[in-house]
Amino acid sequence: MSSAEQVARAAREASNLLQTISSAQKSAVLQRIRQVLEERRDEIVLANQQDKEAAQKEVEAGRLSSSLFKRLDIESGEKYATLLQGVDDVDRISDPIGQVTLARKLDNDLDLYRVVCPVGVCLVIFEARPEVVVNIACLAIKSGNAAILKGGKEAARTNQALAEAIQHAIATTPAMEGQTKFPERSIQVVSTRDEISSLLDMDRYVDLVIPRGSNSLVRHIQNNTRIPVLGHADGICSTYLDESADVQKAVHIVVDAKTNYPAACNATEALLVHASVVSTVFVEVARALLAAGVRLHADERSLAAIEQAGLQSALVSRATEADFGHEYTDLDIAIRVVDSLDDAIDHINAHGSKHTDAIITEERKNAEWFMRRVDAAGVYWNASTRFADGFRYGFGAEIGVSTNKTHARGPAGLEGLTIYKYYLFGNGQGAGDFGVGQGKHQFLHEDIPIDSSVRDKFVL
Amino acid sequence: MSSAEQVARAAREASNLLQTISSAQKSAVLQRIRQVLEERRDEIVLANQQDKEAAQKEVEAGRLSSSLFKRLDIESGEKYATLLQGVDDVDRISDPIGQVTLARKLDNDLDLYRVVCPVGVCLVIFEARPEVVVNIACLAIKSGNAAILKGGKEAARTNQALAEAIQHAIATTPAMEGQTKFPERSIQVVSTRDEISSLLDMDRYVDLVIPRGSNSLVRHIQNNTRIPVLGHADGICSTYLDESADVQKAVHIVVDAKTNYPAACNATEALLVHASVVSTVFVEVARALLAAGVRLHADERSLAAIEQAGLQSALVSRATEADFGHEYTDLDIAIRVVDSLDDAIDHINAHGSKHTDAIITEERKNAEWFMRRVDAAGVYWNASTRFADGFRYGFGAEIGVSTNKTHARGPAGLEGLTIYKYYLFGNGQGAGDFGVGQGKHQFLHEDIPIDSSVRDKFVL
Repeated sequence: MSSAEQVARAAREASNLLQTISSAQKSAVLQRIRQVLEERRDEIVLANQQDKEAAQKEVEAGRLSSSLFKRLDIESGEKYATLLQGVDDVDRISDPIGQVTLARKLDNDLDLYRVVCPVGVCLVIFEARPEVVVNIACLAIKSGNAAILKGGKEAARTNQALAEAIQHAIATTPAMEGQTKFPERSIQVVSTRDEISSLLDMDRYVDLVIPRGSNSLVRHIQNNTRIPVLGHADGICSTYLDESADVQKAVHIVVDAKTNYPAACNATEALLVHASVVSTVFVEVARALLAAGVRLHADERSLAAIEQAGLQSALVSRATEADFGHEYTDLDIAIRVVDSLDDAIDHINAHGSKHTDAIITEERKNAEWFMRRVDAAGVYWNASTRFADGFRYGFGAEIGVSTNKTHARGPAGLEGLTIYKYYLFGNGQGAGDFGVGQGKHQFLHEDIPIDSSVRDKFVL
Repeated sequence: MSSAEQVARAAREASNLLQTISSAQKSAVLQRIRQVLEERRDEIVLANQQDKEAAQKEVEAGRLSSSLFKRLDIESGEKYATLLQGVDDVDRISDPIGQVTLARKLDNDLDLYRVVCPVGVCLVIFEARPEVVVNIACLAIKSGNAAILKGGKEAARTNQALAEAIQHAIATTPAMEGQTKFPERSIQVVSTRDEISSLLDMDRYVDLVIPRGSNSLVRHIQNNTRIPVLGHADGICSTYLDESADVQKAVHIVVDAKTNYPAACNATEALLVHASVVSTVFVEVARALLAAGVRLHADERSLAAIEQAGLQSALVSRATEADFGHEYTDLDIAIRVVDSLDDAIDHINAHGSKHTDAIITEERKNAEWFMRRVDAAGVYWNASTRFADGFRYGFGAEIGVSTNKTHARGPAGLEGLTIYKYYLFGNGQGAGDFGVGQGKHQFLHEDIPIDSSVRDKFVL
């Protein structure tokens, strides 16, 4: 058996055992993880320093970007404290497992319940940012999933040190009375690329793949596995300035959406402008963007307005068709003038990535039309696309942002790691007992009120 | 542009328009479909007769199975009335679109809502059974999805006649005042295999593939598309006779689960027997199965019990490893003796298809352990696996049974065709307005009660 298959089978076995672990025991494991991460701070920071030293040489040799280098660090400022705080944050989210989402009496003595349960085994592939190890491990533990983690090679020592701390914490959390011990192989780390391509084949053992990284990483994974993938390749968000856009709101929102964190997937990449406001609202937005150092890739009509307003600069260039549908992840924005609200919607549905799109308008009817017809995980009225984030939505933590149209969409928290199963409690019935004719039963299909007795029925 | 791409693009355009169609208009279209299907009954039945005549020749030539032939028919007995009734049944299900599943105040004047919406464009591939055209078209219309349908070539004339009736009904339903007209290309039928392989490539336009047919059809589709697939390849359901199984319940349930409709995906294919009841409860179950003409593929220990009870017959044979994990879809059952409840669970998790599994026991604790640890869409206590069905669950209609671990699991009704999006209503905020420091806002994250004003907010 290959080492990848051993890892996948061990994860599946751990997942089977995780079905019977109580919330209290999951919480005990999380608190123990926090404790071990505090105790081992010095050795984890040492591993991080070694990774950074090696990476520094790569940066100097021009083989690693300085932004990637910055994301390696886990010790500066409040970073380690934030990492520890993250464990508590996940511990505090209410446990979704065992929640009843449907309860129905099919017949007397034949009761059906739909109950939330873990997805099973998740494979998480990420680049740089070693704190993801802790974040994902905690989310997996809280949701009762087994996780296989593969980080970037630049952070290999840090990832390994964090993973060992987590595994030690799991191993040294005592089982609660009458309960299975928390399975040690619930959280595993793999380190080579070969293992990943083998793991992507193991749809027998792995239920969900969560890639967190560059477009090319995500697209490679989507194209090379039959396992469902949760995440997004592109974050092509648009903001549309409608006929009745308020100029102050427009300036504030667009500047925030573009410059607050240009590398983020929820940064706005395209600005659509209704023709009637191109020489008014748009000119003020363009002025503010230029002042913030944003490069404007403008179509013919917006370029004319920029020139007419005397805003020509080295930051302004003519957009090509390729600018629309492109994720800059930098201080660049594509600009197109449209003749109607519907044209803006059609542009977004054709060129966007179904992530998050915003309309700036004072006209409620236009906002509602836009929000209903734009096919995206997030549709915003007079707010920055940058709000698309699990923490900002109040989910407590985020496993990723999904542009899928199935399962989880948008910022995904613990719920994205859960599914449900149907429990049926009978008293010896066969399906043939129901139907038309003498002595046959009819289905009652009465909803059972989901009161506290039902709510507690499946919670451990 | 290929004809497949034209179909896919037209479906996507229809899907975009479907976002603004009200429940009342969807209902009007469904009622018009019922009417046209009544008016055109004679020509649809004629098309069905032509399909059956052609198929009869294929059966005689040994190229088509008689069970497939039977499923072609839509006119005998109550079949056409049932088809018409099915339209009303879907119309009566409450409309899931616009339901609010989360409402949260992020800050003053910054409100977040999670609202149920259609998945988008669904590609449905099915074999024989032309009534699926009507059933799926109605479910798609009710849930606001565009659908592309591809049926078996044996039913080509019937499928075409039904599709034309549906399209005529859509075209002749007047638009309601102030509303978009229901898009005519919401429901399209394609007929060639070439088109299917092209459509499976169009993840840009198609959001969900729903195959309904043989294992090999489903597996082929799963292996040849990046689009999410909702369905099941195998239905390998097991029933486990626990130590304290009641003999009467065991006999009734197992005979029903195996013989009520052996070709169904929810029929039991494997019987697991606790060693302590092999010469008692199991012998009575075996006797009843043999009396019903079921072929028993028995492992060594169950075979010995059968022989000792004097039940040898031509229907009994020695099981090989291949019998476990095999879907017979016929009057065959694989039998294995296990030494413990955990062995039964491990066997099911290793050999089952995550569809539906049952335990027969009088011991509540064992039932709960089994139901929690078996990884399947349905886990049953003292009931037949045959209950795994959307109609029996009271969903009103079924688009399929899913053995996926994400999105929809088990019998899937309208909900399986929906997803959600996040609506954010702001007043000009940027994400940079929030954080630590002077003048910065803090997130409130207050839940908004989902009362009638919130519930009505997104319903058309």
